[in-house]
Formats: sequence, structure tokens, C-alpha cells
Amino acid sequence: MVSQVVVVAGIGNGSGTGGAVARLFAKEGYTVALVSRGAESLDVLARSIHASGGKARRGLPNSRIRPRGAHSRLHCHPRALLRPEYAVTAAIFNAGHAVWKPFLQVTPEDVRESNKVNIEGSFAFARAAILAFQTNELVPKTGKKGTLVFTGATASLRGNLITSAFASGKFAVRALSQSLAKEFGKENIHVAHAIIDGGIATGNDRGDRNSPPSGPVENPTPNLKLSPESIAASYLYLVNQERSAWTWELDLRPAHEKW
Amino acid sequence: MVSQVVVVAGIGNGSGTGGAVARLFAKEGYTVALVSRGAESLDVLARSIHASGGKARRGLPNSRIRPRGAHSRLHCHPRALLRPEYAVTAAIFNAGHAVWKPFLQVTPEDVRESNKVNIEGSFAFARAAILAFQTNELVPKTGKKGTLVFTGATASLRGNLITSAFASGKFAVRALSQSLAKEFGKENIHVAHAIIDGGIATGNDRGDRNSPPSGPVENPTPNLKLSPESIAASYLYLVNQERSAWTWELDLRPAHEKW
Amino acid sequence: MVSQVVVVAGIGNGSGTGGAVARLFAKEGYTVALVSRGAESLDVLARSIHASGGKARRGLPNSRIRPRGAHSRLHCHPRALLRPEYAVTAAIFNAGHAVWKPFLQVTPEDVRESNKVNIEGSFAFARAAILAFQTNELVPKTGKKGTLVFTGATASLRGNLITSAFASGKFAVRALSQSLAKEFGKENIHVAHAIIDGGIATGNDRGDRNSPPSGPVENPTPNLKLSPESIAASYLYLVNQERSAWTWELDLRPAHEKW
Amino acid sequence: MVSQVVVVAGIGNGSGTGGAVARLFAKEGYTVALVSRGAESLDVLARSIHASGGKARRGLPNSRIRPRGAHSRLHCHPRALLRPEYAVTAAIFNAGHAVWKPFLQVTPEDVRESNKVNIEGSFAFARAAILAFQTNELVPKTGKKGTLVFTGATASLRGNLITSAFASGKFAVRALSQSLAKEFGKENIHVAHAIIDGGIATGNDRGDRNSPPSGPVENPTPNLKLSPESIAASYLYLVNQERSAWTWELDLRPAHEKW
Repeated sequence: MVSQVVVVAGIGNGSGTGGAVARLFAKEGYTVALVSRGAESLDVLARSIHASGGKARRGLPNSRIRPRGAHSRLHCHPRALLRPEYAVTAAIFNAGHAVWKPFLQVTPEDVRESNKVNIEGSFAFARAAILAFQTNELVPKTGKKGTLVFTGATASLRGNLITSAFASGKFAVRALSQSLAKEFGKENIHVAHAIIDGGIATGNDRGDRNSPPSGPVENPTPNLKLSPESIAASYLYLVNQERSAWTWELDLRPAHEKW
Repeated sequence: MVSQVVVVAGIGNGSGTGGAVARLFAKEGYTVALVSRGAESLDVLARSIHASGGKARRGLPNSRIRPRGAHSRLHCHPRALLRPEYAVTAAIFNAGHAVWKPFLQVTPEDVRESNKVNIEGSFAFARAAILAFQTNELVPKTGKKGTLVFTGATASLRGNLITSAFASGKFAVRALSQSLAKEFGKENIHVAHAIIDGGIATGNDRGDRNSPPSGPVENPTPNLKLSPESIAASYLYLVNQERSAWTWELDLRPAHEKW
Repeated sequence: MVSQVVVVAGIGNGSGTGGAVARLFAKEGYTVALVSRGAESLDVLARSIHASGGKARRGLPNSRIRPRGAHSRLHCHPRALLRPEYAVTAAIFNAGHAVWKPFLQVTPEDVRESNKVNIEGSFAFARAAILAFQTNELVPKTGKKGTLVFTGATASLRGNLITSAFASGKFAVRALSQSLAKEFGKENIHVAHAIIDGGIATGNDRGDRNSPPSGPVENPTPNLKLSPESIAASYLYLVNQERSAWTWELDLRPAHEKW
Repeated sequence: MVSQVVVVAGIGNGSGTGGAVARLFAKEGYTVALVSRGAESLDVLARSIHASGGKARRGLPNSRIRPRGAHSRLHCHPRALLRPEYAVTAAIFNAGHAVWKPFLQVTPEDVRESNKVNIEGSFAFARAAILAFQTNELVPKTGKKGTLVFTGATASLRGNLITSAFASGKFAVRALSQSLAKEFGKENIHVAHAIIDGGIATGNDRGDRNSPPSGPVENPTPNLKLSPESIAASYLYLVNQERSAWTWELDLRPAHEKW
């Protein structure tokens, strides 16, 4: 039997959206392929998923995902997933490079690094995902070949005082996601864009410094901060949407967010 | 034990979004209160829900929902739901009055009727829903007092050749939904807006003229038309979202829609 | 020789946008037809325009503009303009009914009055303007038959805490304007929508209580408030745009506005 | 007396928007500084402006505008403008790198080149313009220190079938322009973004292959194509807007455009 694979790019220290997505999909039976710029957090997260009985691999089904440049090299072990018993049916692009500075402090290097991670990275990741999806049969439950979800932000919709570089990258990813949604919908490939409009309750600010970084914890301020687990639940929902009524874009914010 | 109630306004002949929402929520254990301009389809739908073991009532928990004017009188039996054993925790505004005409053919009566159903109707419905939600405890699973979902359309985002009146009404409802989302989020009341961007596979065009109008049927063209059942699944998802990461707006369209 | 006419609806006390538009177009040689719910301010403004050597009439070229209902009756003397020596080539819809209240304080009457002025009023005004434009030759300088400009607001784009009713009306007018722009562009009729995103320096807050209400005065806080005269200059610019590159929507705000 | 300078980046063969802007501003008395990737067209355009009695220079007041990389090196002669008798009060970013390909044909090089020209280029140009503006006195007529206008496109607002890379770049520039508008408005620096939503009638398709490439010609299809001269008129209008009511964004399209 073919095992469904989710590829998750952008894990950070494992306590945020990427880590929560990895854990939730593992619990749902997916094999999880992790892509990140830092190898250690991958290992911690992979161990934690294995410890819970799930399957996780560092790697990607397609080596073309590697954007050029030392800073954004992704640690991939792709060969393991290129076997017929795996089908990549979900891919989550959660990577990002945030520059939050007044415009005149933004350096050309900031712009280039933001472009590389946000734009070159998302194009490369999307290419790998689409190529993998195209080899799939339709998943019976959803009628789709695969789902690609991009993580957006408030800055995907609005430029603001210190977000010239960050918003440029996020706007660009949103444009990519909409273009892909329109181009590949007719191949039953689903592309979605989730706008995270608020602060995320990641590991450290949830007061769990003594627990492993990748462990899910209660969000002590659900009115004010997004729980990574709730975000992950929305991503799973998007992946499970049927092709007759699927979503390109949704926003996610905590109840008391001022917007 | 308190029974959770969903109020659904805008049922049509029961084979579209409103009917599918009523059936799905009934299956999930909700008591369903139906609001419509036509009494017969309500009865058919209510009987169909009862026949499946669910609970449905024609009526609304608050009589203030009745917009003035003969054409849009809602058939309500509110008293039945004003008992302590019921808690209205979900409300779906699916009503609408569509005018699709070149601008110079739009009459003042068209504009007034569109305003009455779309705008006066949505304001009255929202008022009843918010007032009902405010009397609730937080629902443990979601941390919310209630969820109000509005059905939008392509015309919620764009005016077009024959949609001057229709888009005006839909834009107005979208404005209302965003205002409410911002104002009542801090009371843990969730307001969402779903943009249905495509044709819906309602009863008749699904070839089930001989089956009861409210029966769910397979959508024969899921690539081209939205299944009411898939839309309903998204509404249920919105109602089940936790307050730490909830959605104001999402779009829904079939896989091959050109947009 | 044919005299060009601008029709301006929504004059208030003459010290805001409508008055400034009337004065500026009069200065440019237009005959000005004024439409308002209050007869006195019209007379004051008309006298002020006459005193400056311009031509102004209370009235409208088409009686169909009169929305039903006592509160919003427009004072029109249409016959005077229905002569071959007049051509209505510009029409400015600046009327509005603003409700700024928390949602639960918005009454059904508020909603109905907002609908009547903002939506029924704009539909009626647009109808009269389009019908008048359709009888015109192309204006040589611009290649257009006429220009219809709607005044929008921040609330045209965003619902907010106390703007459920106001934003609903403004969203609706924006939808109308976009529909018209698309439908009548191919007849060389230009429809535009200006989003006034900030406070306007109207007569009273410019400290000119002793000068006539319709007199233009210096804006003492141009960094913080929009001058009606600057807004009017933008409207004139829209009217003068050639058909090869015209604008549907622009925003206008003061330099230091936080947005 | 100080001469006002406009810097124009993105000239192409001189028959499009950049060339028309240069000619129009020269006619208005501005000294024109031209920035382009190709030196020859600059010379042709500069000669044509000189021949009409205007002043044009190849160059830029700030060498920091030079993005890295051979393909996008800008030919600048900056020293000539760094004298006290010049004040750069307008800057037009009209450069762009258009990739119109199905997604799977977009190469990593396409993405990098698009990022370099559209994003690195616009950031560098904006930096030079802002730094130049900050040294200015307020221009008496407008109350501003300078105006920076970016040329956008349909793809600034929507991704589409063959525009994944192009739209990403255009979305990014739009984000930059909005961030700058918000950050520098309070310094009385005006930043605007013009969305060109249609085909432009450039030299060749206007049938003037025998006339100099930079010469303005009549647009034979003003209903269907934007005249560069009309676009330039809008840019001049933006530059002349007073600070009390200025525009961040406007769209420009021909009368019969389907949108």
C-alpha cells in the first residue's frame, strides 16, 4: 500500500507552525518529510515524531528544491522518498526570511536574502511539489492529486512601516500561490494560501522552556495568540477539502486580534 | 443537557447550500432552526431531517429577525427555542436576492428588494444571532460563544457587467461581516464570510427531479460545480475552529473554475 | 455653442467636497447643477458661484433621480437643463448617509435610511447620468461622452468597529461604480471611484464661521486633513482624463495620515 | 535658481511610458535624468529631448542605485546632478523584467533575474530617491519634498496562468510602494503606484517605424491601448498633487478594456 507523504519546509525550532503541522500529519498517518535550513531542529522534531509512533524523514522527494546560496541550503535526503511506495500528496511551504526594519536600514543583502528564501525558495519548493503531485493518481476521498499550502502573514496583504522587505517577499509568495492555483486547478492540484494575521504562540513564549522544543503545549493566551496546533488543523482541513469546493485563501487570527 | 442549535436562513428548495448545511449540522447533533421566505420548502426539509433522526424546527430564537415588507417575511416560530435547554451556537445567513440585469434594466424596485433581503435581512439576522450568542457560555471545545457565517459570492469582491445590484448587496453583506468580526471577536463571537466563487450543483441540475428536493446527491461534475455538501463541510469547519486561530474569510470554488 | 454641465449631488453646507467641486468646475466654465436634500445650502452656494461669475442651477437634467421617501427628496428643477444648448458631461455623486454606531445600536431605520441615500440614491443618480451621457457626442479633448465620479471613503474598503451600516452603504456604492465602469466603458462613458481616506477640512473646522459657508479657505492642517479644493482638483483631473488611460479608482489622503 | 530634476528608470526603446514621461517632464521644465540598462536608447531619447529645447542627462543623483549583476547594470553619470543647483523632486520607477511562461517553464534564472530587476532594482532606486528627497525643502506649490512613482501592472493585483514570476515581482514592488508611502508620508515624501491595466501603444505598434523611436505619436486605438502620453500625464498629475490629498494607488486602462 502506498503511504501518503507530506513535505514540510520551514520548521524553525519545531515549536511553531511547521513543527505542529509535522506532528499533526504524522498522527493522521502521513509520512513526514522535513526541509529546513538547520539540521539540528530537524533531528529533534523527527525524533519526537518517531517517539509518538509516526514516521518522519529529513528530506524531499525532489532535489530541485535546493535554492542556491550557502545561507538557504536545505538539508535534504531525497532518495529515501523516491520509491513507489510513497506518494507525496501534501506540501507545506512555511519557510520565510523576515526583515523588520525601517526602509533606510534595509541593506541590499537583506533584500537579496529575503528574495532567496521567500521567492527563490517558494518557486523551487512549488516546482518540486507540483512535479511530485503530477505523478499521483487522484486521491479517492478528495478527488485531488495533491495540495500545496503556503504560509502567509499580515504582510501578505499590506505593506507597513517596517515591512518593506518582508512584505515584498510575502506579496510575491501570495502572487505565486494564486498563479499556481489558477494554472494547476485544472490538473486537480490544489494550491492554498493561509494568511496568519497575528502573533503565534511558539514554544518559548508558552513557557515550556524545560520541555522538548517540538512538544505541543497549551496556548496560555488563545484570545491573543495563534496556537500552532490550530493553524495545523486548518492546514489539514485544506488538504482534506474536496475538489468541488476548495479554498485558495483564508485568514487565521486569534479572537481578540485588532485588525 | 443543553442542545446546540444552528439557525439557517435561506433554504430555497432545500437542494442547495442552506439545505445541505441543515442536514449536515443535524447529523452532527445540532437542533436546526430554519428561516425562509417560503413555508413549503421548510416543511419538506424539516421532514427530511426528522426522517434521518435529526431535530429541525421552523423558527428563530428571536423575533427581531423579521425584516419589514411582504416579500421578505420570514416564517418563524420563535417561542419553541427560547427555552433554557437550547443554546444557539451557530447561525448561517444564506439568504439572498439576486438581480442579474444590465444596469439600465435594473428598476428601483429591484434595488429596494435587493437591499431589503441582502442588507436589512442580514442586519436583522446578525442582530438576532449576536444577541443569542451573548447569552451563551463559552463552548468548551472551541472557546467561542457562537459562530455566524455569511454566504458570499464572486460578486462580493467584484462588480461586473450585469451585477450592479447583486454586487451592491453582496459587497454590503461582506462589509457587515467584517465589521462584526472586528467588533465581536473580543467577546469570543466568531463571524465568518465564505465566498462561493462558482456555480453550485443544486438539486435540479444534478438530475434528481424525482427524489425529494432536500436529499443530498452526488455532484456529477465536481470539477465544475460546487457540491452543497462540500460547502456545508466548510461551514461546519468554520463553526468548529478554535478561537486562537479562526477565519474571517475564505473562498470556495471547484477545481476547474476559471477565475 | 453647447455649454458643458456638471451635476453635483451631495452639497451639505457647501464647505466640503461637493461645494468645492461645484466652485472649481464653475471656474473651469461648466454650468453647475446642484442636487441636495437641503434647499437653503443650495441657494447659498449657487449665489456664491454666481457672484464669482459662474453659472449654477439647482436642478438635474433628469427627474428620475428622485429616490422615494420624504427624508431624501432631492430639490430639482430639471426642465431648465433639458435644452439642446446644454450637455451634461460630468456627474459627481457625493451624497451619503453616515451611521457611526456600535452594531447593536444600529436600528432598522438606520439601515433603511443608509440604503436609501447611499444605494437607491446612487443607483438613481447613476441612471440619470448614464442616460444623459448616452445622448452626447464624444468630447473632443478626452474622447469620452461623460464622466461619473463617486465619492468613497475608508469604509469603502474596510468594515470596522462602528461602521457596519456605513461601510455596507459604501461597499455597495463601490460595487455599483465598478459594475458601471465595466459595463459602460465600451460606450466611452467613464466611471470613477475616489476613496477619501481621512478627515476633510470642512468650513467649520477651518475656523471660518464668519465667512460664507461656501467660501474656499486655506486648509490650516494640510498634513492631517484633506482640503476639499484638493479633492475637487482630483475630480477635475478624472473628468479630464483621456479614454486611452482612465482611472476607475484612486485613493486620496493627507500626507501624515496613519493608514 | 534651483532646477527641478526628475529621474526616470526604465526607458526601453523610448517609445513607451518611460520615454513619454521623460518628454513630458522636460516640457514642463524639469531636468531629466535617465536610467536604463541599455545605453543607446538613452542617447536617442536624450538627443530628442535636447532637440525639443529640454534638458536631459543620462545619470542619477546617487550611485547606490546600481543593483549587482551584469544584466541589470544601470548606466549612470551621477556626478553631474550632485550640485546645489539641482533638486531631485520626482523619481519614476518604470523598469521591469517580464517573464510570461507557464510555471514549469520558469527557470531559477528567470526568478533570480526578475527579483534582481523588479525587487533589488526598485529597492535601490527607492533608496536613492528617498535620500535625495530628504535633502530638499518643501516644494511650495505642493508642500512635498518629492514624489516617487512606481509603474505597476495587472499582475500587481492578480497572479494568473503564465504570470507566476512576473506577478511575484510586481506584487513585491507594490508592497514596497505601500510600505514607503506609509513610512515617508510623515516626511512629506509622496509615494504612488500606478497600475497599468492594459496593453500600451508603444512606438512600433503605432506604425511609426520610420520616425525616431522616442517621438510621441497619435495612438490609433485609444479605446483599446493606453497611450504612453496619457500615462505620463497621470504621472505628472501625481507629482503635482498637494500633500493634503495625495494618492497612493490608481489604475489606468483604455476605455474598452475587458477587466
